[in-house]
Amino acid sequence: MTAVASAPAGTAVLAARLRQAVGAERVLTDHAQLRTYECDGLANFRVTPGVVVLAESRQHVVDTVRLCAEAGVPFVARGSGTGLSGGALPVAEGVLLVLSRLRALGPVDPDNARVVVEPGVINLWVTRDATPYDLAYAPDPSSQQVCSIGGNVAENAGGAHCLKYGFTVNHVLGAEVVLPDGSVVHLGGTAPEHPGYDLLGAFIGSEGTLGVATSLTLRLVRVPEAVQTMLVGFSSVEDAAGTVSDIIAAGILPAAIEMMDALAIEAAEAAVHCGYPAGAVAVLVIELDGPQVEVEAQFAQVEQIALARAAFETRIAQDAAERALMWKGRKSAFAAVGRISPAYFVQDGVIPRTKLPQVLAEIDRMAAEVGLRVANVFHAGDGNLHPLVLFDDAVEGQAADAEELAGAILELCISSGGSITGEHGVGFEKRHKMAVQFTPEDLDTMQLVRCAFDPEGIANPGKVFPTPRLCGERPGPRTGEHPVQAAGLGEVF
Amino acid sequence: MTAVASAPAGTAVLAARLRQAVGAERVLTDHAQLRTYECDGLANFRVTPGVVVLAESRQHVVDTVRLCAEAGVPFVARGSGTGLSGGALPVAEGVLLVLSRLRALGPVDPDNARVVVEPGVINLWVTRDATPYDLAYAPDPSSQQVCSIGGNVAENAGGAHCLKYGFTVNHVLGAEVVLPDGSVVHLGGTAPEHPGYDLLGAFIGSEGTLGVATSLTLRLVRVPEAVQTMLVGFSSVEDAAGTVSDIIAAGILPAAIEMMDALAIEAAEAAVHCGYPAGAVAVLVIELDGPQVEVEAQFAQVEQIALARAAFETRIAQDAAERALMWKGRKSAFAAVGRISPAYFVQDGVIPRTKLPQVLAEIDRMAAEVGLRVANVFHAGDGNLHPLVLFDDAVEGQAADAEELAGAILELCISSGGSITGEHGVGFEKRHKMAVQFTPEDLDTMQLVRCAFDPEGIANPGKVFPTPRLCGERPGPRTGEHPVQAAGLGEVF
Repeated sequence: MTAVASAPAGTAVLAARLRQAVGAERVLTDHAQLRTYECDGLANFRVTPGVVVLAESRQHVVDTVRLCAEAGVPFVARGSGTGLSGGALPVAEGVLLVLSRLRALGPVDPDNARVVVEPGVINLWVTRDATPYDLAYAPDPSSQQVCSIGGNVAENAGGAHCLKYGFTVNHVLGAEVVLPDGSVVHLGGTAPEHPGYDLLGAFIGSEGTLGVATSLTLRLVRVPEAVQTMLVGFSSVEDAAGTVSDIIAAGILPAAIEMMDALAIEAAEAAVHCGYPAGAVAVLVIELDGPQVEVEAQFAQVEQIALARAAFETRIAQDAAERALMWKGRKSAFAAVGRISPAYFVQDGVIPRTKLPQVLAEIDRMAAEVGLRVANVFHAGDGNLHPLVLFDDAVEGQAADAEELAGAILELCISSGGSITGEHGVGFEKRHKMAVQFTPEDLDTMQLVRCAFDPEGIANPGKVFPTPRLCGERPGPRTGEHPVQAAGLGEVF
Repeated sequence: MTAVASAPAGTAVLAARLRQAVGAERVLTDHAQLRTYECDGLANFRVTPGVVVLAESRQHVVDTVRLCAEAGVPFVARGSGTGLSGGALPVAEGVLLVLSRLRALGPVDPDNARVVVEPGVINLWVTRDATPYDLAYAPDPSSQQVCSIGGNVAENAGGAHCLKYGFTVNHVLGAEVVLPDGSVVHLGGTAPEHPGYDLLGAFIGSEGTLGVATSLTLRLVRVPEAVQTMLVGFSSVEDAAGTVSDIIAAGILPAAIEMMDALAIEAAEAAVHCGYPAGAVAVLVIELDGPQVEVEAQFAQVEQIALARAAFETRIAQDAAERALMWKGRKSAFAAVGRISPAYFVQDGVIPRTKLPQVLAEIDRMAAEVGLRVANVFHAGDGNLHPLVLFDDAVEGQAADAEELAGAILELCISSGGSITGEHGVGFEKRHKMAVQFTPEDLDTMQLVRCAFDPEGIANPGKVFPTPRLCGERPGPRTGEHPVQAAGLGEVF
C-alpha cells in the first residue's frame, strides 16, 4: 500500500492498528492528503502530521486516543481548523484527530433552553436550530459560519457579544471528554451548580491539552424582544474610547461595543462600502438588546454620552438592512485589510478598558518607529484589542519587523495590566509569552494539572506552555527554584 | 506549660514549631480553647483539633501550611464557621487554621468595579464599603452578616439573588493561594479572559482541599436603578411552581424568585409576623431589578402570569419597610422553624425547575410514609431546594429517621436530574452521596486534580470525596476497574 509506505516509519505500526480499530477509510497516511492538515488558520506555522484520523463516532475517538496512549505517540485534535493561534498545529510523526464529522446536533430542548451537540457541529447551526424557539447560542466568533463548537470550547471562543453574554465557558453546561489515557468522563452537568471541583471550567480553554470533548451540552439564551444598533463617528480615538468607559460607568451594559480606527475604517469602506461616517478617525458600533422600553431609554442615554464626548455623527439603524450593513463593515474588517496591504498579522490582546487611549497612542508610536502601519479593530467594551500589523512580505525583513511589533504589542498589553489573549488562545504562537504574563510558580501550577490529566505529555504537546514539563517527581516547595526551568528543555518540535 | 501538655503528643513538636514561626499567642493547644472550634454550622459532627492557629498575615498562613507539610500533619482552614455541610470540621490531631483575623478590605476601585479583600472579611462588609460608589457585592447567602468571603469561596456560596447574578465563582476575578506544599500562586486575574487553564474556577468551591486563599479580588456590580419586590399567594404548590417556570419561559429574569410552602409560611408567620397572604399553601417572593421602565413593564407581565396560574393575591411592596418585611419572612424561615419543631435538618439539593411540582409531591409522600414533616424553603428560580426535615430529638429513633429522609430527598434530587448541593457544599456530611451523583471515573478525575495539588492528602482530608485516594501511581485506563475503590480504604476519622 503506497499510503502506508509514505507514512513515517515510526507511525506505520500505529497506523495499521488505527485502521483496524476505526476502519481503513478513516485513516490517512498519504503525504499529499496529510499536507491538507499541515496548519490551521495561522498559516505561518506548518507541520505535516504522521497520520490523520477522520473520526465519525465517540468510539473512534476513544480508540484513537487509547492506541496513541499505548504507543506513546502524541495526538492533536482539530475541528474546522479556523483557529488563529496554531492550537491545532500537528505534531510531526503524531496523529491528527479530525472531529469535523462528529456533527450530531440536538434536538433543542426549549423548556430547559439547552441542546446537546457533537464537537464538529458548526457554531452558527446551533442558533439556526434554536431560532424557531426564540432561542440562540450566544458566543459568536467572526468565523461562526465555519468554526466548530469543539474548537470554540478548546479556545474558549468569544465574539462581538461577549461583553454582555460572556465567553464559551459561560455557555457550556457539561461535556463528555475522552482523557489522554482513553477513559471517558463527564464534566459539569445540567444543574446550575455542581458539587466537587469545577473541572469543566478548567477544560474549556485548555486548547486540547487535557483531553478531547465528544459531546457538549450547550446553554441557549432567549432572543431579546428588541435589538438596536447605533453607529457613532468621532474625530479622535480618545473621544471614542472615553465614550466606551462612560457608557459602562453609567451602568449600561450593551450587547456589543465595537471600535475601529481610521485605517480599519478605510479598509472596510473600500471592501464593502459600509457607509461609515466620512472623515471619522474612530467609529463605535454599539448594540443594545432587551425589552423594547429599556433599549429605547438606554439609547437616548448612550447618544447623550457620545455627544458629550464630541461625537460628530450618531446614527441608529432604521431597519434590518441598515443594521446588517453596520455589522458588515465591522465583521469584514480583517479580510478587508487585505485590500490595503499585501499581508498582515492579526493580534489578540486584552487591556483594562480605562487604558484604551494610552495603549492605542503607544501602539501608534511603536508602529511609526519601525515604519509599519497598524489597523485596530476591537471589542472595546471588554478591552479586547485586535491590532492588525500590516506588512509587505516582498520587502526583505518586513515580515520579521511585523512579527516583532506584534509581539511588542502583546507585551504592552501585559504591562498595561492586561493579557496576551482575549479569545484566540495561546496555541503554538504565543506559548513563550506565557512566561511574560505568569510567574514560574503560576505556570508550574497549571502544569501540575496538565500532568495529572496527561502524565505522558501526548495531548497536544508543544502548545500553551513555554517549556514542556517532565511529569515525574513533583517539585518540593517552589520558592525560587524551578526544576522545570532548570532542566532547560528545548522545543518539542 | 499546661497548654502544651494538653495537646496530643503527636502534635506537640509541631505546636512548638508553629509557636516559633507565628508567635505563641496565635497558637492554641489548651483543650478548652480547642473545643471552641470542634464544629462549624453543622453541629451534629464534632472533632476537637490538635492545634489551632489564629493567622494574622499571609506569612502566618504560609508558615503554618509549610510546617504542616513538613510534619505530614493535616490542616483544615476555617473562616467564620457558618458552613452547613461540615466543610470546616477539624481533623483530630490536625491543625485548624483560623483565617478570621485576616480582615484587610479595599479600598474599593470604582472605575474598574473591583476590590481586593483578605479571606476573613465578612460578606456584608464588602457591599457596605461599595455602597458609596453605587456598587455592591452580589453573592448574598442568608448568613451574609457573619460569613466570611474565604468561606464563601471555599463553598462557592450563592444566595437569594444567584438566579440573576450567579454564584461566588462569577464574582471572584483572582485569588492568591497558598498550596498544600506552602508555595504561593496566583489564580485568575483582572482581565476578562485569561490564557492557560482556568484553575480559579476549580479552586472556588473546592472546599479547602486544594489550598488556602490569602487574598481575593472581587468583582462588584452596579446597584440597579430600581428594585421592586412582589409577594404572591397561591392555593397550590403546583400553581406556584408553574408560575416560576412561566416567568422564566417568558424571557424574564428576576433578581430572585423565592418559594415557601405552607409549613414554612406558618413558621415564619409565627416568628416574625410577616403578613403573608392568609390561607396560602405556597407563596412566591419575586424581586425584579434594573432600569425603572423595565421593572415596571416586567412586573405587569409577572402579575398576568401569576393570575393566569390562579394566584389569589399579588402585592407589590410600596416602600422599603414593606419590602424588608417580605424578605424578613423568607430570610427568617430557617430559624423560625425552630418555633414549630424541637429540631430539624436543613438540606440543600438542586432539581430542574420544570420538575418542582413532582419532586415536592414526592417529598410530601416520603415524609408522610415515615410520619415526619418537611418544610420547604427554596430558591425556586434555579431549582435550589432547602427542605427542612423536622423532628423531635427526644423521641427515640426520630433523629435517625429524619437523617435518612434527608438523605433520601437528596437521592430524589439526583434521580430527577439534579444535584446533591446547590450552595452549601459537600463537606463532611454529603461526601458519600458524591458516589451516587458521579461515576467512579468522574470522581477519579477530580481526585487526579486533588492529588496534583496535594499528593500527601493533608489539605482538609475526609471532605468532599467518598473515599480517600492514595496519590501514588496513576491508574491505567479506567474502564470498569477502580483502584481507589478496590483499595477499600476506610474513613479518615
